[in-house]
Formats: sequence, C-alpha cells, structure tokens
Amino acid sequence: MQLELIGEARCFEGRQQTWKHRSEVCDCDMRFAVFLPPAAETGPVPALYWLSGLTCTEENFSVKSGAQRHAAELGLALIIPDTSPRGVAIDGEDEFMNVGTGAGFYVNATQAPWAAHYRMYDYVARELVAAVNANLPVDPQRKSISGHSMGGHGALTVGLRNAGEYRSISAFSPIASASRSDWGRQALAAYLGPDESAWADYDACAVIRSAPSRHELLVDQGGADPFLDELRPDDLKQACESAGQKLNFRERPGYDHGYFFVGTFIGEHLRFHAKALA
Amino acid sequence: MQLELIGEARCFEGRQQTWKHRSEVCDCDMRFAVFLPPAAETGPVPALYWLSGLTCTEENFSVKSGAQRHAAELGLALIIPDTSPRGVAIDGEDEFMNVGTGAGFYVNATQAPWAAHYRMYDYVARELVAAVNANLPVDPQRKSISGHSMGGHGALTVGLRNAGEYRSISAFSPIASASRSDWGRQALAAYLGPDESAWADYDACAVIRSAPSRHELLVDQGGADPFLDELRPDDLKQACESAGQKLNFRERPGYDHGYFFVGTFIGEHLRFHAKALA
Repeated sequence: MQLELIGEARCFEGRQQTWKHRSEVCDCDMRFAVFLPPAAETGPVPALYWLSGLTCTEENFSVKSGAQRHAAELGLALIIPDTSPRGVAIDGEDEFMNVGTGAGFYVNATQAPWAAHYRMYDYVARELVAAVNANLPVDPQRKSISGHSMGGHGALTVGLRNAGEYRSISAFSPIASASRSDWGRQALAAYLGPDESAWADYDACAVIRSAPSRHELLVDQGGADPFLDELRPDDLKQACESAGQKLNFRERPGYDHGYFFVGTFIGEHLRFHAKALA
Repeated sequence: MQLELIGEARCFEGRQQTWKHRSEVCDCDMRFAVFLPPAAETGPVPALYWLSGLTCTEENFSVKSGAQRHAAELGLALIIPDTSPRGVAIDGEDEFMNVGTGAGFYVNATQAPWAAHYRMYDYVARELVAAVNANLPVDPQRKSISGHSMGGHGALTVGLRNAGEYRSISAFSPIASASRSDWGRQALAAYLGPDESAWADYDACAVIRSAPSRHELLVDQGGADPFLDELRPDDLKQACESAGQKLNFRERPGYDHGYFFVGTFIGEHLRFHAKALA
C-alpha cells in the first residue's frame, strides 16, 4: 500500500506526521496522523492506536492532547486515524453530528448507502494496522489501543474483540453501551439496520458480557461530564462486574468531556500502555 | 470593571476559563482566556501574560500549547488575551491576514478607521492588567510576559517598554523588527500612517537599541521556520549585541513556526518565568 506524507513537523525531538492513503476497505482516500518518538529514529517502537470522538479528524488529538510529550519520553508511537470516510457523496452524510462524516462509530456498515464506505471497524482493526506495520518504524508485535467518547467505544470494542492483538486497552469517557445511547442507537440503526441483534458486536458492554478478556481495562470519566446519559458509565461498571472483567474505573471530580480533561490524564494512560508494551 | 465568565473547564486540577468584558480602550467587547493553577485556590499567584500570533484568538494557546501542565506544577496563572478587537464594523477588517481582525500587532492605532478600536498596546499593557488584578487571584506585583510570532513582537515591545513592571520577558519566533517585515510594514502603515518615525515604539529591535533593559531575554526560534524573512532573528541578535541587551537565543534545528514547536519548549519558558517570579 502506498502512503503519501502530506504534513510533518518536528515535535519533542520526534516527528508529527499526517499521512494519506487509498483505503480499499472504505473505498476512498483516508488520512491518519502519526507521532514518532525520537527512539523511532534508531529502531522499531511500540504503537498506541488512538480513536477519536464524534466530529473529530486525525487532527484533534494531535493538536489538543499534549500526548507527544509523554510519548516522546516513553518511546511510544501514536497512530491517530480519522473518525469516518469523508466526501464519499452519500446523501445526508453531513447532516447529523452522530451519523456520517466524523461519526463512523467504528462499525462495518451493512446498510445502503453506508455499506459502500463506512467500514471503520475493518479499517482500524485491519487495513490501518497493516499499512502502519508495512510503512512505519513500529514493532508489529507491540500495539495497544485507547480513545475518547465514540473513540472510547471504538477502543473497547475493537480492543476486546481482538484482545490477543492488543497488549492493553484504555478509554476516556467511552460511549460504553452504544445500543443504549441515543447517539449510538441512531448511528447503529443507520449503519446496521433496525434488527438490534446485529448491534451487539458494537456495544462495549455486550462484548464484555459475552467475551471478557484477561486485560484490565483503564477508564477515566469526568465527574462533571454533561453527556453521562449517552456514555452510561454505570452500565460499564455493571457489565464488568457481572462478567468478571477487570476494570480500573476512575471518576475525576469536576472534569467535563473535553480535551482539557483528556490532556490532564493522557500521561497516566500512556504510562499504563507503555508498561504493558515494555 | 465587570467581567463575565463565559466558559470554564477543570484542567490539571486548576481552572481553564474564558472571560468577556467591555473594553473602554478598544471600545468593544473583548475576550481573554485564563488558566488558574491549583495554588490559586488558596491565595494569589504570579501571572504570565501570553500574547498570541496572527489569526489567533485567546483559544489557540489555551488549546494547543499544553502549557497548563507546567503552569499547574509551577503555580503560575496564564493570562491569554485575544489578538485584536473583533466585529467593530471597520471596512476591510477581515480582508488581510496581517491587518485588522486577528492582527492587532499590539499597537495603539492613530489612523482612521483603526484608531477608534485598535488600541491593543494600551489594552494589553494597562486595561487587561487592571481587569485581571481587580478580579482574579493573582499577585499584581508578580507578572511576566511572553508570546509567539506577532505575539513575540508584542511581548518584547510591551515588556521592554514597561520593563519595571515585568519580572521576565521571553518570546517564541518573534517578529523581531516589525518595521522591516512585510507583514509588519503593511500593518504599521495602516495603523500608524506612512511616517515611519512613528513606528519605532513598535519595533522590538528599535526599542532594544533605544532602551535596553536589565532583563535577559529568552527567545526560541525554529531552525526550519519558513517565515525567517518576516521574523528577522538576525536583526534581533544584532540589536541586542550593539545595545548590550542580554539575550539567550536558542535556535532549534528542524522545528517550524507552529504550535508543535511552541508546545515542545513552553515548559522551559514557564520555568524561566517561574524562577524570575519566585
């Protein structure tokens, strides 16, 4: 696969890059951002995949999280995909905050018109990983996954459904049960159709109940988050409790849903992943 | 003066705030951002004023620099003004990147139509300081100043012309000689008129030559910055050399003009200021 470097800046003695490539899975051009730590100049490094939330591109986490400072120190690459196909000329793709552009929800859509392009599950779990492993100085055997909000949902579902491939899994403010969230229900109905039995693979709580993993999940949640009804952290705690899934859940009093919250605790998550990837 | 809090988020156990107020100096509403470290909960803290570059609002540095991590540790407040009046209905105010909206250049305009509103020098050096001192938990006796690009020019000119009021002065990639930069010449001609003798107070090199201060200036400049012709770092070095102005100038190989560069070195600048403010 051909990757095109469309932007690069020096950052904490490493490299912050933006790549573009033709995605076979999504049948369109896709972008992703990468941070390569200084250690990548001399050999392959472990990689943390970061999945972003609704409305984000590959740029938000890159610009707002301050994660590079920690990744440079820890010798971690950061791989930051976009959150959906873009500009694929689907009627209504830009109409809703939570369906279409910026809202791929990390599923493989089965319903027209979305199924032709909206296959973010396979893109993130397979095609992107293959592209990164083939073209960037990362160790294919050492990867972990994290994300925020819709991307926290993505990190939990992609990570747990492929638990043998990821050394560690964490999330910030994840949409913990997409099929019980208004944002998620509208998206899953559009992408997967009205039969809710098809949604279970894309509901983190359902995945945990059916197949808990050996991983201890690390989850941070702002106590002043205005979207708790959508995120359903109590569902997550109950699902982990009932399934015997280890969970380190940390409520952070006073913090909301934004990147000031993510930036405050991203260092702790990166250290968590670096330890698992060592 | 009445300040209105229009946004607040918890951040590194402190508070990231956005304030709005009526500016008498600029004869319009102005916004500024503030970070209050945890130490501000129990008493007044020293403050670093940060002046941003062309096109920025109070949001860019707040969101992109990662400075709060350091400010929280060091017990520093960050005061981050907007870069110009906005929406004051001046013909052409949104036409140019370097004149008008987002481009106040930290001058007191004397020419119509700008003179009615574009008085960012007095706003930053006087009115904003008074508003902050009267309303926020900062120590009025302990403030420093820094900035980036056009804001680096602002930090040097405001700081040096009021050297007794600031404990320390630093800049990232400053426009070091606005009257010799194409961006600056167009702006200074618009705001101050064609007589260049009126420009000297707003040219950092000219200020240094006429009134060097006891401060040692700290300046970081990316070696791969594409705007060196506008910034003129060699003019800065020569002016300091000839005037006996102490300068710690650090060229950073490979770094460009953006916030990945600022974010990489902002911690060093905050520690420099914290030491002077201790």
